[in-house]
Amino acid sequence: MIAEIICVGTELLLGNIVNTNAAYLAEQCAMLGVSSYFQVVVGDNKERLMYVIKTAAERSDVVILCGGLGPTEYDLTKETVAEFCNRKMYEDAHSKACLEQYFAARGLEMTENNLKQVMIPEGAKVLDNPNGTAPGVIVEEEQTKYILLPGPPMELQPMFENHVMTYLKGLTGEEICSQTVKLCGASESKVETQIKDLIDAQSNPTIATYAKPGEVHIRVTAKAANQKEANKIMKPVVKELKSRFGHQIYTTDEKVTLEKAVVELLQGADLTIGLAESCTAGMLSARLVNVPGVSDVYKMGVTTYSNKAKRTLLNVKKSTLRKHGAVSQQTAEEMVKGCAQLTGADVTVAITGVAGPDGGTEEKPVGLVYIACNVKGNIRIKKHQLKGSRSKIRENTTSLALTLVRECVMEYLSRVTFGKK
Amino acid sequence: MIAEIICVGTELLLGNIVNTNAAYLAEQCAMLGVSSYFQVVVGDNKERLMYVIKTAAERSDVVILCGGLGPTEYDLTKETVAEFCNRKMYEDAHSKACLEQYFAARGLEMTENNLKQVMIPEGAKVLDNPNGTAPGVIVEEEQTKYILLPGPPMELQPMFENHVMTYLKGLTGEEICSQTVKLCGASESKVETQIKDLIDAQSNPTIATYAKPGEVHIRVTAKAANQKEANKIMKPVVKELKSRFGHQIYTTDEKVTLEKAVVELLQGADLTIGLAESCTAGMLSARLVNVPGVSDVYKMGVTTYSNKAKRTLLNVKKSTLRKHGAVSQQTAEEMVKGCAQLTGADVTVAITGVAGPDGGTEEKPVGLVYIACNVKGNIRIKKHQLKGSRSKIRENTTSLALTLVRECVMEYLSRVTFGKK
Repeated sequence: MIAEIICVGTELLLGNIVNTNAAYLAEQCAMLGVSSYFQVVVGDNKERLMYVIKTAAERSDVVILCGGLGPTEYDLTKETVAEFCNRKMYEDAHSKACLEQYFAARGLEMTENNLKQVMIPEGAKVLDNPNGTAPGVIVEEEQTKYILLPGPPMELQPMFENHVMTYLKGLTGEEICSQTVKLCGASESKVETQIKDLIDAQSNPTIATYAKPGEVHIRVTAKAANQKEANKIMKPVVKELKSRFGHQIYTTDEKVTLEKAVVELLQGADLTIGLAESCTAGMLSARLVNVPGVSDVYKMGVTTYSNKAKRTLLNVKKSTLRKHGAVSQQTAEEMVKGCAQLTGADVTVAITGVAGPDGGTEEKPVGLVYIACNVKGNIRIKKHQLKGSRSKIRENTTSLALTLVRECVMEYLSRVTFGKK
Repeated sequence: MIAEIICVGTELLLGNIVNTNAAYLAEQCAMLGVSSYFQVVVGDNKERLMYVIKTAAERSDVVILCGGLGPTEYDLTKETVAEFCNRKMYEDAHSKACLEQYFAARGLEMTENNLKQVMIPEGAKVLDNPNGTAPGVIVEEEQTKYILLPGPPMELQPMFENHVMTYLKGLTGEEICSQTVKLCGASESKVETQIKDLIDAQSNPTIATYAKPGEVHIRVTAKAANQKEANKIMKPVVKELKSRFGHQIYTTDEKVTLEKAVVELLQGADLTIGLAESCTAGMLSARLVNVPGVSDVYKMGVTTYSNKAKRTLLNVKKSTLRKHGAVSQQTAEEMVKGCAQLTGADVTVAITGVAGPDGGTEEKPVGLVYIACNVKGNIRIKKHQLKGSRSKIRENTTSLALTLVRECVMEYLSRVTFGKK
């Protein structure tokens, strides 16, 4: 089955916003085993919108349109699809009731132009939108199905997950399931080499790798008559991946991020964490706090950007800074010790590096980073030489720090468990 | 002049990466006054790539293609454009020399397949790529010009700015200049109302507003025979905007971000800054450190996520936390005072709020945020009720904090200047 994604909005053509909807929809389609050969962006212009719908209809089984369902005269997606499919529009009583309820619940008054949003092409399926004012619509023609979704990601994504996913599975007539095995501390090329035999032998399930900043994801996708069968097909491959990559796998759950995995590991081990950041300057801290409920394990962190801050907050010795410099193994070690003393946390992390673009030397070039992790007095320090822009170097450093924390905590746990036996 | 943007890469069709190149190129074209009606994404497939090039050629004066210039057999953009335009390919000696130099400078060995990258369609212009291995190419046909750029943004963007911009200006035969007036602490709808008369009366220059997180940008664009003329046309409008929005304007320089403006303000006033963050947990700190050279003014910051951290690091009173809670005006005030004491900075900022999704109450709902700014003892505290997801609330809070710092420092400067007189 072939799907085409059409994103509607002049703001995309002007580059005012980045098209995250296309990436989201494309990824979802790929996970459902639906192929996609083209993505198109078109403005709020009826003639050109009609043209791209016609082109997409000729080459696809499913056309997913997003955006252009708003209340203004520039919102034309529904009207244009209806015209292309020769459908009249009617005011849908159910959608109107939902809309009135939406406004009432927020203590807002509904304006006349919102009623445009409950005009539905005849015979279409309506997808409720509890997160906004534009219902989604599915118009089914014999050859092609048109799925119209609202533009705001906070409305589009739940609508896709709650309605469109099931609908697409129904169309394909088979269950397509995928499982993502997420690795940290591995390079994509190395991972690919390690599973080349599996990739070469693949048919069902299929196996693909994806590089993410500081991570590699391996996606296993199976087609089957039902979910149970699909799971049965994937199981031995996932098991094989687990045996090949072992502890490098931090999750097999699509929704779990690296920071979430680290927070859950700390929660499970009943360990608190404290941070001392220099070049990342709060990025790691902010990333941990992406995880709701992190307050169980994370209480405080410091950004010690200057040498003086390293001295006063973390007790880094003046002589160490003078002798070895702020970006050195020795400073990282004293930082992480000082961080343990300051925060009283069980696990502490210290980061110091040259983020650039200036400040690099031959001996200590831009991208040189030291990350130290201290688990109850056991300290491990890693040195990295990273590439890219200032922000890239800092971002990658946070992933590497999370990876190091994971390694050190797992090592600690195995030590403790062994000690108890 | 009409341009079409074609992004080539199966990774885009699979949703593995977000198409930031399309947004960048679209914005650049818009700023140059080049219209764009369609954007297309196509995979690494010759037949389909040929099809979209043909379609684009029929409806555009300029076709900008990005991606697919790499050394692998899947990189087909150059070959397909050459075939479409009936051009043979030759090994370009200049590009080969650049490539060899690129590898030599990095101490790397060039592999045979890299030579594919220096194959150039006959008669094409070559755009040097000091940041990567794929040169850019411009193929000029009578009706349509084809601009081929490498996919990595770190290669594409400098190539666009150093070569393509001038080329496009040459094609339009007129200078299109724009100036962006950036505001903080303003809402887009209010800004639009305040300049409705200017927008209604616009022809040359044109005026448009763009909402960014916590900011509004107003872009003034003029067409003229040359840059001097264009500047002359823009000048009175920019002057009028300055008089209407005054201190809300933090820059009229496209390259200056809000954090950069704040850092420059602090540098100019010779003031240091210290941070105490709770719900943002280092986001503001990390954002300040986006600015190279920030170490002049920013030395240290703390993330005090728990009540205990607020007490021990910032001396917030136990009774204050008990009586008013961690998210309160009183706690924000004690945090900012404690931050001044801890960091010794001239300007200190404290942030405390409910980022959600849990932890909200009727009295203190998700999105309630207090931001305090202390300039040498003068404290100002702002309360905000924000909407959106956990990350949205935290992101917006950092913009609001930067806005508050700016206001307080400017107020301080005017006070000091007045006092001196």
